[in-house]
Amino acid sequence: MSDRASAGFLDSVLDRVGSLRTAWRDIAASARGVLSGGAPRPDLPDDDVAKLRAQMLNCLDGRGGEVGARARAAELGRTYLALNPTGRERFLRLLAEDFDTDADAVAACCGRLTRAADAVERAAAQRALRAALTAPRVTLLRQFNALPEGVKFLVDRRAELLASGSKDPAFQALADDMRELLANWFDIGFLQLQRITWDSSAALLEKLMAYEAVHEIQGWSDLKNRLDADRRCFAFFHPRMPDEPLIFVEVALVNGIAGNIHTLLDQSAPIGDPQAADTAIFYSISNCQRGLNGISFGDFLIKRVVDALASELPRLKNYATLSPIPGFRRWLAREAESGGLLLAAEAKAIQAILPEADDDNADRQLLGVLDRPDWVEDSRTAAVLREPLLRLCARYLLQARAASGRALDPVAHFHLTNGARVERLNWLGDVSVKGLQQSAGVMVNYNYRLDHIEANHEAYRSEHKVAAASAVRSLARVS
Amino acid sequence: MSDRASAGFLDSVLDRVGSLRTAWRDIAASARGVLSGGAPRPDLPDDDVAKLRAQMLNCLDGRGGEVGARARAAELGRTYLALNPTGRERFLRLLAEDFDTDADAVAACCGRLTRAADAVERAAAQRALRAALTAPRVTLLRQFNALPEGVKFLVDRRAELLASGSKDPAFQALADDMRELLANWFDIGFLQLQRITWDSSAALLEKLMAYEAVHEIQGWSDLKNRLDADRRCFAFFHPRMPDEPLIFVEVALVNGIAGNIHTLLDQSAPIGDPQAADTAIFYSISNCQRGLNGISFGDFLIKRVVDALASELPRLKNYATLSPIPGFRRWLAREAESGGLLLAAEAKAIQAILPEADDDNADRQLLGVLDRPDWVEDSRTAAVLREPLLRLCARYLLQARAASGRALDPVAHFHLTNGARVERLNWLGDVSVKGLQQSAGVMVNYNYRLDHIEANHEAYRSEHKVAAASAVRSLARVS
Amino acid sequence: MSDRASAGFLDSVLDRVGSLRTAWRDIAASARGVLSGGAPRPDLPDDDVAKLRAQMLNCLDGRGGEVGARARAAELGRTYLALNPTGRERFLRLLAEDFDTDADAVAACCGRLTRAADAVERAAAQRALRAALTAPRVTLLRQFNALPEGVKFLVDRRAELLASGSKDPAFQALADDMRELLANWFDIGFLQLQRITWDSSAALLEKLMAYEAVHEIQGWSDLKNRLDADRRCFAFFHPRMPDEPLIFVEVALVNGIAGNIHTLLDQSAPIGDPQAADTAIFYSISNCQRGLNGISFGDFLIKRVVDALASELPRLKNYATLSPIPGFRRWLAREAESGGLLLAAEAKAIQAILPEADDDNADRQLLGVLDRPDWVEDSRTAAVLREPLLRLCARYLLQARAASGRALDPVAHFHLTNGARVERLNWLGDVSVKGLQQSAGVMVNYNYRLDHIEANHEAYRSEHKVAAASAVRSLARVS
Amino acid sequence: MSDRASAGFLDSVLDRVGSLRTAWRDIAASARGVLSGGAPRPDLPDDDVAKLRAQMLNCLDGRGGEVGARARAAELGRTYLALNPTGRERFLRLLAEDFDTDADAVAACCGRLTRAADAVERAAAQRALRAALTAPRVTLLRQFNALPEGVKFLVDRRAELLASGSKDPAFQALADDMRELLANWFDIGFLQLQRITWDSSAALLEKLMAYEAVHEIQGWSDLKNRLDADRRCFAFFHPRMPDEPLIFVEVALVNGIAGNIHTLLDQSAPIGDPQAADTAIFYSISNCQRGLNGISFGDFLIKRVVDALASELPRLKNYATLSPIPGFRRWLAREAESGGLLLAAEAKAIQAILPEADDDNADRQLLGVLDRPDWVEDSRTAAVLREPLLRLCARYLLQARAASGRALDPVAHFHLTNGARVERLNWLGDVSVKGLQQSAGVMVNYNYRLDHIEANHEAYRSEHKVAAASAVRSLARVS
Repeated sequence: MSDRASAGFLDSVLDRVGSLRTAWRDIAASARGVLSGGAPRPDLPDDDVAKLRAQMLNCLDGRGGEVGARARAAELGRTYLALNPTGRERFLRLLAEDFDTDADAVAACCGRLTRAADAVERAAAQRALRAALTAPRVTLLRQFNALPEGVKFLVDRRAELLASGSKDPAFQALADDMRELLANWFDIGFLQLQRITWDSSAALLEKLMAYEAVHEIQGWSDLKNRLDADRRCFAFFHPRMPDEPLIFVEVALVNGIAGNIHTLLDQSAPIGDPQAADTAIFYSISNCQRGLNGISFGDFLIKRVVDALASELPRLKNYATLSPIPGFRRWLAREAESGGLLLAAEAKAIQAILPEADDDNADRQLLGVLDRPDWVEDSRTAAVLREPLLRLCARYLLQARAASGRALDPVAHFHLTNGARVERLNWLGDVSVKGLQQSAGVMVNYNYRLDHIEANHEAYRSEHKVAAASAVRSLARVS
Repeated sequence: MSDRASAGFLDSVLDRVGSLRTAWRDIAASARGVLSGGAPRPDLPDDDVAKLRAQMLNCLDGRGGEVGARARAAELGRTYLALNPTGRERFLRLLAEDFDTDADAVAACCGRLTRAADAVERAAAQRALRAALTAPRVTLLRQFNALPEGVKFLVDRRAELLASGSKDPAFQALADDMRELLANWFDIGFLQLQRITWDSSAALLEKLMAYEAVHEIQGWSDLKNRLDADRRCFAFFHPRMPDEPLIFVEVALVNGIAGNIHTLLDQSAPIGDPQAADTAIFYSISNCQRGLNGISFGDFLIKRVVDALASELPRLKNYATLSPIPGFRRWLAREAESGGLLLAAEAKAIQAILPEADDDNADRQLLGVLDRPDWVEDSRTAAVLREPLLRLCARYLLQARAASGRALDPVAHFHLTNGARVERLNWLGDVSVKGLQQSAGVMVNYNYRLDHIEANHEAYRSEHKVAAASAVRSLARVS
Repeated sequence: MSDRASAGFLDSVLDRVGSLRTAWRDIAASARGVLSGGAPRPDLPDDDVAKLRAQMLNCLDGRGGEVGARARAAELGRTYLALNPTGRERFLRLLAEDFDTDADAVAACCGRLTRAADAVERAAAQRALRAALTAPRVTLLRQFNALPEGVKFLVDRRAELLASGSKDPAFQALADDMRELLANWFDIGFLQLQRITWDSSAALLEKLMAYEAVHEIQGWSDLKNRLDADRRCFAFFHPRMPDEPLIFVEVALVNGIAGNIHTLLDQSAPIGDPQAADTAIFYSISNCQRGLNGISFGDFLIKRVVDALASELPRLKNYATLSPIPGFRRWLAREAESGGLLLAAEAKAIQAILPEADDDNADRQLLGVLDRPDWVEDSRTAAVLREPLLRLCARYLLQARAASGRALDPVAHFHLTNGARVERLNWLGDVSVKGLQQSAGVMVNYNYRLDHIEANHEAYRSEHKVAAASAVRSLARVS
Repeated sequence: MSDRASAGFLDSVLDRVGSLRTAWRDIAASARGVLSGGAPRPDLPDDDVAKLRAQMLNCLDGRGGEVGARARAAELGRTYLALNPTGRERFLRLLAEDFDTDADAVAACCGRLTRAADAVERAAAQRALRAALTAPRVTLLRQFNALPEGVKFLVDRRAELLASGSKDPAFQALADDMRELLANWFDIGFLQLQRITWDSSAALLEKLMAYEAVHEIQGWSDLKNRLDADRRCFAFFHPRMPDEPLIFVEVALVNGIAGNIHTLLDQSAPIGDPQAADTAIFYSISNCQRGLNGISFGDFLIKRVVDALASELPRLKNYATLSPIPGFRRWLAREAESGGLLLAAEAKAIQAILPEADDDNADRQLLGVLDRPDWVEDSRTAAVLREPLLRLCARYLLQARAASGRALDPVAHFHLTNGARVERLNWLGDVSVKGLQQSAGVMVNYNYRLDHIEANHEAYRSEHKVAAASAVRSLARVS
């Protein structure tokens, strides 16, 4: 949440607790009264920490019932937002350290469970243990759910914690608690699929531009082009954060599987007829809320969108992505060290265009060429690189594994988990700076073939088997 | 859910998984395939139980990702609804007994926690323990959240379990698990307040008539009268059960605190001017979903409604209930056994109108009179009973306690917890059959005085102190 | 508008001119000031008429611009509603007589048109003439369009005028002016088709019950049955009267063309599967607003509904009505006077069951039997009457004509104009009191065969040719 | 409508007559059949005109009832949009000349009216005359109301006619007919006020940018600034053209009457608190639909917006405009010819800063200075011009009259008619190119003082008296 938005939040909490204000002014006042010396100072010195601790305890003790508890939680949120970074860290540390589970209580419950004589006692002991394992800070954070914008408040706090990159176990445990709480609230049952069009609100579209993470949106006319008649855009929303998209996908309706992102994004290209299209290309999927990291919506989004498209446009036969290969160059660089990337003929071809190279290691030469900002504009160079890079890319996608056995490339892992297969590699599919830097200009299509999804998913999940079209499989085998 | 509604559910699950059907037919088919001998038999004999167990395991193992899991859950729901009562009991028993927590795993986690060397290990062990304490059946039930009407399905299953009155610990534990799950989903942050008027849908109004639990609605014209210009009706809804009210309250806008329910419900009474009213009388609050027993919305509803009314009608000064005293006659009967209910003068007055009574115990005579169906129509009798019954009623409300120390009367306990005070007793406030049977015709006003709510609530919560108007306090002290 | 609704209107005009009130209090006040002696007396004596005339003139002279004019119109409406019947008649007479077109001005314009020298002069003269032909009362009435509920106010005034049955030419001219104005506002382009279901508002459903004009709705459960899964109900609404249906149609989804209204309305009948139905039966069409008499929506409604049904339920093949024959018995009675209704064999059969009849005129005997309230319950009588009545009914529908040449039966005329054909006669299709009284128990299906509509419509419109199935045509020819 | 939008219209008519298509394919086909040689050629040669005439007659003769007529009208619209400019002119000429009123029929009706013997005959004759005065083309155009986008189609056609500037009486009469028809449909009773915010659809906001006619919107961030928390924007819409604003107004919420447009439009200015503002400044009012020229919504819009603001923000005390004076420079130039603009002292001051001028006529020198693009940046020049220009501007606004007696300045005339007064002149209130070119940099506030509106309006309407603050009146009197 930006500073200005935070200021808005301050007002909105005050204002809409106004939905509880008329009657419960006293509660709010007494909630405020806890910090009776007035608002805490921005960097939250020790004596303000003490007052804040009291305020948090107050929030937990159930005085004033549900309604009172929520008013107190709003007051806590207000306090937080008025703090500077130092104050905020102290606030979170207080929450993390002083409101953790009570180790003794947990141990006692474990003991009681061990001694349980029958099913009834065991059930009771388990219940008690579960309760003891719920940190007071979780109870406290939960109260934000009922506040206007309270859910967004928590999501933003977790985003801050993650962004801080802190290795402090207390902070990590707090972020974990938040994750569990949010995972509950953001169960896919609550998600609402909305189609986004040029008729959507400007405020929402502005957010889309900010959140787009794959192919940056250049401005309103670029965005309008991505929402034209031959495009579709869908997002998930949550009822408690109705103005904030969680994740969105951009789709182009075309004929045949598209291989070039620039063609898709060309604003001067003629508009296709969606009714005549046979293929839906998912060319951009962006998560919008960093605070929801680790809570996954993408698989569900893709499948809901496939359903929506299938029912709107019965002629569609293919559902495929046009995706970057973000780890490809990094992998190339690592592999080059152990050598043996290029076949003899490939190495020779490269050296033919680099006669004056003083390093005769072809693999390193390859990396060197890729480092040049303009290699792609030299058609001869591009022609020479085409074959080895596509081959290596196929190998990367199909064979490179993380320690856990999953595909090394994160985008590949995502789509393979969802049951797609590696369909086709596209030479010079993305020659933007980012596309060259990460993917050496190559793009890949992952194909969601509806009657193979289950089997692909299963094979990948259980044996890490990567499904791929035979052409890609052959390419990966060349040696 | 009625049988017909259940049948509708069957279709709707099939139909709207249709929202996932186009693409995921295979998953649904394989989900069904588990019971490959076709649908299970209605009473679920042992071999069908075995197949069902496999189906449930399948549902848990994560095959097919989130989407597959939900399709399998829908199939389980479908299976359940096709069973007869015997089959249903077996289904639930299977769930309760075979999908409980793994005691060994829990014990192991307890051990690991004991041995944890530092904060990081402790946090990890706690996380593991929390996971082990989540019964597989809970994971399974959670998947219903994403199904259309899946939440209602769970609510209805819990209602069935509660209605069965089973003392079986397995069933009680299952009902408890459901309660916890539902409490999470029905957090007050998700509740939506809706005003209900004669412009609401007939389908909803029909449900209101069915759910009204305090003063039965006699038909459409009675209902229309309760929704007229000088009335308000509000209900809470949940986004996952949009057609089902959770709880609703009926309010009359009047001048001065109303003491007679028949006046309020009189369809021929003139319609008051809501803008001129100074008092809002909450005369009926009904919970609609038995399956949500133990998850409380009433306090929050009343306070949200007070806010809504205060902002619509700035002239309102009083917010009070007109409530039954459901435990009064039961308490009278019990107290009569130990004697000493009536003061001497009261006893004499009663005996004066009952000269031929062969039992000369005035307390018992009092009970006897109250048992007559028509005592209320005899004005002399009514006049004689008035004073002692009001006095005893005051004592009942202010002094009678449950073992836990809370007010014995459940309605009193509810409003006292919310911070209201006992304001006034109303003689012959409800002379309906039910009103006479439970409350001896007396009604009571609980008054929500906004600036005393917090203090009243606190005093009752911590010391079981019952707030009451001085007139009622005096009455209770007469002896 | 009922009295209570009128009172509501008074308030609403005051209240919602409130939408213009904050700022324009003065205008409203001065508008009221015209009747400075306070509100007019209920029977509007002469001096109040004079004041009212001034008020109307004020309304016309454009002072205060559009906004002022509307405020004055609201004040006029308010005045009207406070009058008693005498006062109301005087109000309308004043409007009709004193605010008619100016005959001299019209004559002058006619003269100017005659003398026009060229196209430009002619166009100007025509414009002037058109203006002169617009009665001031029309300008005045037009201002009601901008008032909340102003359109309904005019519709209700026209309904009053029509209901009065006055032959006074001034009133008839006023009613005509209203018709023209309303016809403009209620152009079919403005009509909004809404499906009505059990989820519609109770307030709307209550109106439906009141407005149903063909087969009376017996109460809420009858209505619910008519809105069940195998039924459809559609109505037209107007944006300026959003709470008032203009016309609605009830449709049953069945297999084969239905012939019996009691079967359709039977609440205990099982609910059919709408997806499996091949036939849509339009069994009731009711106009709701008497004040819109002469402005026809029926044809457009039927065709819009056919479209809506065709797109929802692609299996539908037949669109037909099940209709009463309201003029049949009246026609029978008239024809009986000239004799020759019954064929010899038919006459004999009737006399066989009426041996003791002292009138030996079989036609009159037939009428006599039909006058008996219970003939339909005697199966022998019913059997004897079946053949001659169906034969005569066919003749009535196909051959009986009004002076203008159109079909004598009004319902037949409506559907024939729309392009339907007479499909089938149904013996004892409606044995309700009304059905026997008007239609001798017979019902008829009009069939909308989509590819014949245009030709049928044209043939009926130009040559009064009645389209009919061959079986009905044969029946009509028997002699 | 742009060409692309027109193409869209073609499809939409075809497509959404689809709302009538399933069933009425035949009608549409036969409608098309009229031009059986296929679509007409783009320039509509004579034989295609003949076919088109037949098609129009067909549209009028009522064949196929309302539904058929509308389908034929859609076909006509489709034909029109496929024509080139020559073809379109021929199409409109055909409509204008061949479907005018029948002069003989009108004359005959005039005669019949003259001979009418009594009220009944007179009423009938008037009705007939009215009918005869309705040109067939009007009947034809009216059928567009029921078409999707049909109303917009007519509005755009009238815009074309006006834009052509044709003096052809036939075209002018056609445009007049359209005006009358549209004035009926766009009665203020049908207008819907909508607030426009950053949450409005991007498609709508894009139109706003295109339609803004007073202070051009520079892009999305300029627009966003104009919709911020201390701004309001309202527009009127019509139910038959829901995506098209008719007129909109931009309002700034400030303290005190604002005098400088650049301050208001400054994107870097801090955002004010709307709740604290005492003044609403209407700084831009734009009509959006040229085809609705001569149908006035502005007065009604301002007053509805004043009401909306007054009810949202009770602290507002002033409602004033900040307006250009578009005719000021033009008037100055004309007046300069007769001389005597400047007072002696003013002339001297100007000559003092223009020593080398070879023309010694001070009035012409003044005009010369104003013609310099950069005079405003020279503070000495600006200081010298200030006094005389404000004085002359006051005289222009208060005294300059058109032949009809109304204020010469069109914006002044608009606000004076609405009852506002000339409140204050603002030196260098608008120094944009346009502001200097039209208004010599001066802006004016028109003040809507609610309790003087009626009197001001009346005085201006009846006597052309211009209301003004005394300071402005004094300024205008200086000589």
